[in-house]
Amino acid sequence: MVTTRQVRLAQRPTGLPDADTWSVTTDELPAPGDGWFVVAVDHISLDPAMRGWLDDVPSYLPPVQLGAVMRAQGTGTVTDSRHPDFPVGAAVTGTFGVTEYALSDGTGVRRIDTDVAGAATWLGALGMTGLTAYHGLYEVGALSAGDTVVISAAAGAVGSVAGQIARAAGATVIGIAGGPEKCAWLRELGFDHAIDYKNENVLRRLRELAPGGIDIYFDNVGGEILDAALANLRRGARVVLCGAIASYNDQAPPPGPRRYMSLLVNRARMQGFLVFDYPEKDAAALEALAGLAADGRLIARETVVDGAVDDFGPTLLRLFRGENTGKLVLRIA
Amino acid sequence: MVTTRQVRLAQRPTGLPDADTWSVTTDELPAPGDGWFVVAVDHISLDPAMRGWLDDVPSYLPPVQLGAVMRAQGTGTVTDSRHPDFPVGAAVTGTFGVTEYALSDGTGVRRIDTDVAGAATWLGALGMTGLTAYHGLYEVGALSAGDTVVISAAAGAVGSVAGQIARAAGATVIGIAGGPEKCAWLRELGFDHAIDYKNENVLRRLRELAPGGIDIYFDNVGGEILDAALANLRRGARVVLCGAIASYNDQAPPPGPRRYMSLLVNRARMQGFLVFDYPEKDAAALEALAGLAADGRLIARETVVDGAVDDFGPTLLRLFRGENTGKLVLRIA
Repeated sequence: MVTTRQVRLAQRPTGLPDADTWSVTTDELPAPGDGWFVVAVDHISLDPAMRGWLDDVPSYLPPVQLGAVMRAQGTGTVTDSRHPDFPVGAAVTGTFGVTEYALSDGTGVRRIDTDVAGAATWLGALGMTGLTAYHGLYEVGALSAGDTVVISAAAGAVGSVAGQIARAAGATVIGIAGGPEKCAWLRELGFDHAIDYKNENVLRRLRELAPGGIDIYFDNVGGEILDAALANLRRGARVVLCGAIASYNDQAPPPGPRRYMSLLVNRARMQGFLVFDYPEKDAAALEALAGLAADGRLIARETVVDGAVDDFGPTLLRLFRGENTGKLVLRIA
Repeated sequence: MVTTRQVRLAQRPTGLPDADTWSVTTDELPAPGDGWFVVAVDHISLDPAMRGWLDDVPSYLPPVQLGAVMRAQGTGTVTDSRHPDFPVGAAVTGTFGVTEYALSDGTGVRRIDTDVAGAATWLGALGMTGLTAYHGLYEVGALSAGDTVVISAAAGAVGSVAGQIARAAGATVIGIAGGPEKCAWLRELGFDHAIDYKNENVLRRLRELAPGGIDIYFDNVGGEILDAALANLRRGARVVLCGAIASYNDQAPPPGPRRYMSLLVNRARMQGFLVFDYPEKDAAALEALAGLAADGRLIARETVVDGAVDDFGPTLLRLFRGENTGKLVLRIA
């Protein structure tokens, strides 16, 4: 038996989550039965998609139920095991939830090598985040050398990896981010151009920087930036819908993309995807990402917040304030 | 020399075109030089896309210039020729403009057999209209048997052909049209279901008629009907953007599709196309369309207005009032 603190969904938020959204409970975890093991969680991933899981709306994953432990990816170490593939001491990653300890039968759990990369990187560039960027660009965006690729939320977890993948593939990459510091970081990462949407006119800057038009727009934000990209498509462009963080906390659906008829004039497409859609290609993608990281062509950066599971709620809000650069991770003391 | 009356663009319209938009001029057409011929136009096609050509906005085709003869597809008979492929007496179709007589060097002109189908049909189901429906469904929509296909403006020129093509391919077809008469006609054509958007709630009816979701939505209208379709997509759906007649005369860009994030949740795509994009597939498509017509599986219907070129302006407005069933054609006396 192990005692564990866990963050549960207490109340569905309207707009931004707040203190009333969450409750922290202390539970006893039973000893693992045959084929089960216990993980001491050390890092918890914070993702924009979490906001959607809080609404009682059918979506690609079922909503988190009231009273249930909040769903989250994490990393940790096996502390007790009756599972042959996950012995005590193994470092692992999986959907353990916002908890100190989790019981698992291994479903969706992978072992990781923390000598190759730190745990936070296994949640980021070498985990779901990296796969999202990779599959979005290749499977949906049909990325190829010579493309002009524009990425929004480019200093975020997925965006920063996507830009580097596109650059390594021989594309010209324009990142859009908020503030001069994030833009400077994008240039350090090798982005050809960075647009500061807080201080520049995105529509006009895109026209200047991509006079021939955009081949791939990798959209993490929706809203006005999506419209600015639609207004600058090249013929045959692909708009990859990865997210729309600009509106995740809105109480009414946001306005749609007014420039969508640009898809017709430019014979372009706008397509959504989820990282889970290409399981047969995950292994090759992770290998490619690890190769880029080893070559120094993929720099993984995480914003690591030290704390306890209790800090999950406030830390999540940092995402929606745009306070993270790269992957946002909560490290459990 | 031949005397011809022609409709020219006198003034760019704001909103719906009106009498001030057009001027009718009488000109002398010079005798054809070597490689040229003269066509006496007998039918003129009226198309929603014409509205876009009147705005001074870069698009897939250059805007019609002020003072120029209005661009239009038509059919006619060669009356004078110094071109070996188009002898006097040949029936032809091409972009002759809104004119009684046109001079042509054969660019974009095809000969037609008016024993196989009437001239109006060569502008409709067996012409650009048919090709638009065919390429949209197959090249963009990836139509296959078993699909649930929803078509807006289904009693219009492109929509009525698209529904019959989809039906012949083994799809379940739901047409959306305005009024009980048009809906009754869709059922006559073999559509599985028809929704009268003037008298029914499209969102709710789509949910009832396509409980498993929509595989292909062939969009000719945009606006609220596009949103209703987006709200009912099946995973992997294709939204084929063919037009947006609902907003062609709006002075401000219309609101975008608010439900566009359904593309993400459903891993669906929305893609625009133009009929000109697949020239290498036109011959096979026209052959398939002619085959369906010969089998009785493609019923071509035209709304033919008898008049003179002077009637072009008022006749065009019928399209935007939804007064046509099938292809709208002006027959020149």
